Amino acid sequence: LSKRRIALVVTARPSWSRIKTAADALKARDDVDLLIVAAASALLERYGAVVRDIRAEGFHVAEEIWSVYEGETRLTAAKETGALLSELAGAFSRLGPDAVIVVADRHEVLAAAQAAAYLHIPLIHVQGGEVTGSIDDKVRNAITQLADVHLVSTAKAFDRVLEMRPDVGALDIRQTGCPSIDLAAQAMRLGKLQAWAPYVVVLQHPVTGETEQAGAQMDETIKAVSRLGLSPHYWWPGQDAGAADMVKVMRAYGLGNAATKNVPPVEFLRELIGAACVVGNSSVGIRECSYLGVPVVNIGTRQQGRERADNVIDVGHDAGAIERAIRDQIAHGPYASSTLYGDGEAGKYIAEIVAMQDEAVAA
Amino acid sequence: LSKRRIALVVTARPSWSRIKTAADALKARDDVDLLIVAAASALLERYGAVVRDIRAEGFHVAEEIWSVYEGETRLTAAKETGALLSELAGAFSRLGPDAVIVVADRHEVLAAAQAAAYLHIPLIHVQGGEVTGSIDDKVRNAITQLADVHLVSTAKAFDRVLEMRPDVGALDIRQTGCPSIDLAAQAMRLGKLQAWAPYVVVLQHPVTGETEQAGAQMDETIKAVSRLGLSPHYWWPGQDAGAADMVKVMRAYGLGNAATKNVPPVEFLRELIGAACVVGNSSVGIRECSYLGVPVVNIGTRQQGRERADNVIDVGHDAGAIERAIRDQIAHGPYASSTLYGDGEAGKYIAEIVAMQDEAVAA
Amino acid sequence: LSKRRIALVVTARPSWSRIKTAADALKARDDVDLLIVAAASALLERYGAVVRDIRAEGFHVAEEIWSVYEGETRLTAAKETGALLSELAGAFSRLGPDAVIVVADRHEVLAAAQAAAYLHIPLIHVQGGEVTGSIDDKVRNAITQLADVHLVSTAKAFDRVLEMRPDVGALDIRQTGCPSIDLAAQAMRLGKLQAWAPYVVVLQHPVTGETEQAGAQMDETIKAVSRLGLSPHYWWPGQDAGAADMVKVMRAYGLGNAATKNVPPVEFLRELIGAACVVGNSSVGIRECSYLGVPVVNIGTRQQGRERADNVIDVGHDAGAIERAIRDQIAHGPYASSTLYGDGEAGKYIAEIVAMQDEAVAA
Amino acid sequence: LSKRRIALVVTARPSWSRIKTAADALKARDDVDLLIVAAASALLERYGAVVRDIRAEGFHVAEEIWSVYEGETRLTAAKETGALLSELAGAFSRLGPDAVIVVADRHEVLAAAQAAAYLHIPLIHVQGGEVTGSIDDKVRNAITQLADVHLVSTAKAFDRVLEMRPDVGALDIRQTGCPSIDLAAQAMRLGKLQAWAPYVVVLQHPVTGETEQAGAQMDETIKAVSRLGLSPHYWWPGQDAGAADMVKVMRAYGLGNAATKNVPPVEFLRELIGAACVVGNSSVGIRECSYLGVPVVNIGTRQQGRERADNVIDVGHDAGAIERAIRDQIAHGPYASSTLYGDGEAGKYIAEIVAMQDEAVAA
Repeated sequence: LSKRRIALVVTARPSWSRIKTAADALKARDDVDLLIVAAASALLERYGAVVRDIRAEGFHVAEEIWSVYEGETRLTAAKETGALLSELAGAFSRLGPDAVIVVADRHEVLAAAQAAAYLHIPLIHVQGGEVTGSIDDKVRNAITQLADVHLVSTAKAFDRVLEMRPDVGALDIRQTGCPSIDLAAQAMRLGKLQAWAPYVVVLQHPVTGETEQAGAQMDETIKAVSRLGLSPHYWWPGQDAGAADMVKVMRAYGLGNAATKNVPPVEFLRELIGAACVVGNSSVGIRECSYLGVPVVNIGTRQQGRERADNVIDVGHDAGAIERAIRDQIAHGPYASSTLYGDGEAGKYIAEIVAMQDEAVAA
Repeated sequence: LSKRRIALVVTARPSWSRIKTAADALKARDDVDLLIVAAASALLERYGAVVRDIRAEGFHVAEEIWSVYEGETRLTAAKETGALLSELAGAFSRLGPDAVIVVADRHEVLAAAQAAAYLHIPLIHVQGGEVTGSIDDKVRNAITQLADVHLVSTAKAFDRVLEMRPDVGALDIRQTGCPSIDLAAQAMRLGKLQAWAPYVVVLQHPVTGETEQAGAQMDETIKAVSRLGLSPHYWWPGQDAGAADMVKVMRAYGLGNAATKNVPPVEFLRELIGAACVVGNSSVGIRECSYLGVPVVNIGTRQQGRERADNVIDVGHDAGAIERAIRDQIAHGPYASSTLYGDGEAGKYIAEIVAMQDEAVAA
Repeated sequence: LSKRRIALVVTARPSWSRIKTAADALKARDDVDLLIVAAASALLERYGAVVRDIRAEGFHVAEEIWSVYEGETRLTAAKETGALLSELAGAFSRLGPDAVIVVADRHEVLAAAQAAAYLHIPLIHVQGGEVTGSIDDKVRNAITQLADVHLVSTAKAFDRVLEMRPDVGALDIRQTGCPSIDLAAQAMRLGKLQAWAPYVVVLQHPVTGETEQAGAQMDETIKAVSRLGLSPHYWWPGQDAGAADMVKVMRAYGLGNAATKNVPPVEFLRELIGAACVVGNSSVGIRECSYLGVPVVNIGTRQQGRERADNVIDVGHDAGAIERAIRDQIAHGPYASSTLYGDGEAGKYIAEIVAMQDEAVAA
Repeated sequence: LSKRRIALVVTARPSWSRIKTAADALKARDDVDLLIVAAASALLERYGAVVRDIRAEGFHVAEEIWSVYEGETRLTAAKETGALLSELAGAFSRLGPDAVIVVADRHEVLAAAQAAAYLHIPLIHVQGGEVTGSIDDKVRNAITQLADVHLVSTAKAFDRVLEMRPDVGALDIRQTGCPSIDLAAQAMRLGKLQAWAPYVVVLQHPVTGETEQAGAQMDETIKAVSRLGLSPHYWWPGQDAGAADMVKVMRAYGLGNAATKNVPPVEFLRELIGAACVVGNSSVGIRECSYLGVPVVNIGTRQQGRERADNVIDVGHDAGAIERAIRDQIAHGPYASSTLYGDGEAGKYIAEIVAMQDEAVAA
């Protein structure tokens, strides 16, 4: 019997964390050939070259696609999306997959979705239907319009996809939960990392549409955190216009070397479990931390509209407000675990659906 | 006072017909600088080089972008979209428009929408919310997800956009009607062209997803039409995968030279007014002909789901069925004019809205 | 023992004819893995899709690269060279060849040479050192500057490469003759095709730098040939700016359908052997016909500077002069065979050198 | 009278230094319109964004072209050359220059030369005919093959261009000297910068073809310099594969912040004048320092084959050898000024020739 050939496009470190357990489950099946296409910042040292981790975990990387332009302007973001679309179309033509899996909402992911759609390859979108504010919503929903199968994380996401795509059959929208929660479940089984002193974790990224403020936003957060008297753990911002300015500010505070950037996802989650508070605007605070029950101070508009469990306090880019919210969260301590974003088995569910998909799915 | 700089992207001859009266109205305003970006098949002789007509009508073409790959495969369609996205991002950066107008649903239009969205330039989409079947729906709706302002043709289209974009303010979805109906109104004022004998007009294009059948589909239509004993008027198929096969079939029947391809839109519509029947799968049959009241035999799936007035009979790709339907339509004769797709003033309405848009629209 | 992996880039029908016997000899070796990369017009129906012939002859095509832009302007020629360079660099990275073979002087070939040179893959250039006039000389010599090994056709070409590349070791410039002559030798062994009446063969192409005159040039040739009272056999012009205008003129004379475009090279050469005269500006007239001894009337500047045997009369783009020269050649009849461009064993020599090349060749 | 439109392509900080006085002289003329096209690393902060300096000096930048891919591999170098070729062809089409000036030998410069050549725009190459070893020779000579006018620095370079291009008329090869020497002359008139203590300047770059050794090479140099007991002044390596490894080594020695990267060229040269010794593999050591009479220790193969005045001692990548040579040079002290690379008036000569060029130059 011939195996189903499934291409999985990984364009950034975070997308890998959000699909890894599904990739594990697909690799374990003998009726599926998993073809990983690593592209864009997934290849770049500056973002931790997640492609190396993928290979280290025993996956075969079928194609590598270099497409990131230097400059981190809006123009280069658009240009690299164009280059990536063109390159991915070539890669899909060479690989001839039965379906393509794409994850989440980065501009690179829309390029992958277009390449699959234009080549008439059934497109499976993981994590559609969410709301996060900013241009990411537009891009995510545009991908939803191109996709044939929608594997969503939450009940509300299910409803939103159905609203946007009344033409899609009920079997082609499924609530699987998010595979990132599978890692959170794994991290909880392993328990928190040992630490000598209470610490806060800072995860802040540039916001599309507010790139000029990225440096100043980082500045407010650093000011607030430095007043706490706790050991802070800073992480690099992800690849996006504005990141360079944030790095500059971090360096100015001498935080350049302190910020880590490439630990195994589960280790990273174990670090979060041990944190007194997670601070910034990362989706990890909203999603994984809801399952982990970690207190979170979420800053600014980047996670606007994303569904929240009880563990999150929202504040603006103001050092005073940030500081107060962190102190409140530390006083509160850990929250109860929520299954809002999944029950820890999403990878398994996704692999089963992907493996079953028959030709009827094709556009 | 500084003028609003409005970029209008024209990627194919049909999109020009569908926006021309709005372009006229924008050019006539002294508070707007109209920057026409002519791209893709709008530049190609093989498709009648509509850029020449645009210039001949006194418009300034701000940029020309060559992006069409030879080959007409799905792969080249994807690659040229990537190239176009990259090039349009450069063009928009150079031109610095206050807003970008895109029209309809071709894959090139999604590239234009992405370029504007990634550069954070307010994006105005004309003709969203329609349903036509095939991959065009996916692409059109993806553009709707990226757009900031939606100028739709029909009441149903208005509802569909609202459903897909509950986040968009009521003022940013407007039912203007379709500018192509303005040309139809103009043509009706001028009246039909003189003809020596009754004739039928054949307008058939390849269907996305049925490109391998394109030649055979053309063959059925030609067989049916040749049995009528009426003078047939064939037109070239538009640029898309499958067109080359259709041209081959047309040549095999000696129709290669007979098919016209580049007359002024209004002259074209006047020819339709005089037709005993319009045959094929062009949207013109559904849209403009609804206003003109011309009897139409619409073949196959290409216009599936598009709203129809009474003037259309639908049939499959079968010579016998096509022939019978044409004979029925000829027996029926002209229909009453319908305003389903507009009242003939869409261009004026669009120009007013575009000129008024303030910064609040920006993403 | 591991095989030497040799990538051979074929970007157009004529380059295949000029390397085919070397490809045959490389395929026959068990110490070589031949990786054919078919690109640009080699894939296009409009130019006879030589990639199909290559496969039909039992070769494995390792990669197909679509890169030709529609439009045939100087701008699209430049753009497609850029796209091809980028794509070929990806292909070479995936294939990991020990050496890359490129042939002749088209702008696409410079892209292939750059891709190999920038990736530090030893580059073998076949047919360097010739002089043909026009921009082709510039491109060919630029390739010579990038290449590591030079396999030339004539003694003069050997001297010219040595002059341009005094840094290259003597073993890395070899006079092998041109593989196209191998086909000519094969055609002579098979003999001419049967014909009912004497005929002339017309092979005319647009000239770089004279693209605006391409139509008028074709017109003069057609006028001259039509006065001869012989059966003319017209061929389509090759892909290049200006070709579209020539095709228009040919169609205007009703020659559109008469022009053949895709016969096996040896059959084509057998047709030449039987011709009373070969007319136009194809290099075939100068090269293969020198070995075949066929009388040739060479028109205009396209072959300017190319070494000639006795079989060629040169004329300008003037119907009268063309007609007179053809009549003179017909009166003269066949010439003696010349080995100016090779002795009919070039493919064998090339394969031996390519297979032997060791790592010392690498840049 | 209409002005001659001259496009000048600047793709990197060093090329600007090597053409700046010619640009000054062209800007001063009222019969020339100077169109600066800033591309590739000339736009990037990481390389000092020389485009900002260009604007600060009052030049109009006609186009900016973003083309650098992140990754700094051979593959990305090839891909960005392809992208740049495509983009520059568009820019030249929009600008319509009467001639294009390109400088030196980087892979980006070949892309610019191709764009001009394919568009049939007369191409003026500054600094052809030199010999430096490595792949740069190949690229430089490929540009020489494409260029129409050759403005060379040295007598030997004149001879080499003539040897490679016997077809070029004597008036189209001129020995103007190098504009970088004009800056050196200017710096000498201003005199050295004040310094508190004797210092050495380190200017080391990755070597094409030795990119894997780039880090180790840097290491040897740092070891040697740190033993001298003099104040060292380190500079960042230029954009090229291998640079990232060098930066890593520099950071490991705590030199990350010490290395300057963006001072006005003349200030930079004044710093060199004051140096006890210049160490590394920069061409500045060979060229500008010959005029300045500064003692130089040139390391490794990067400047191999470049003509030298008396001021240079060559050594391999060995800390001991480097240290000894530096000590010898310090003992020797300043050398006499040499005019090997120009007399300090090259910019003026170049501007005169460029302004005079008539249409006869066109390909």
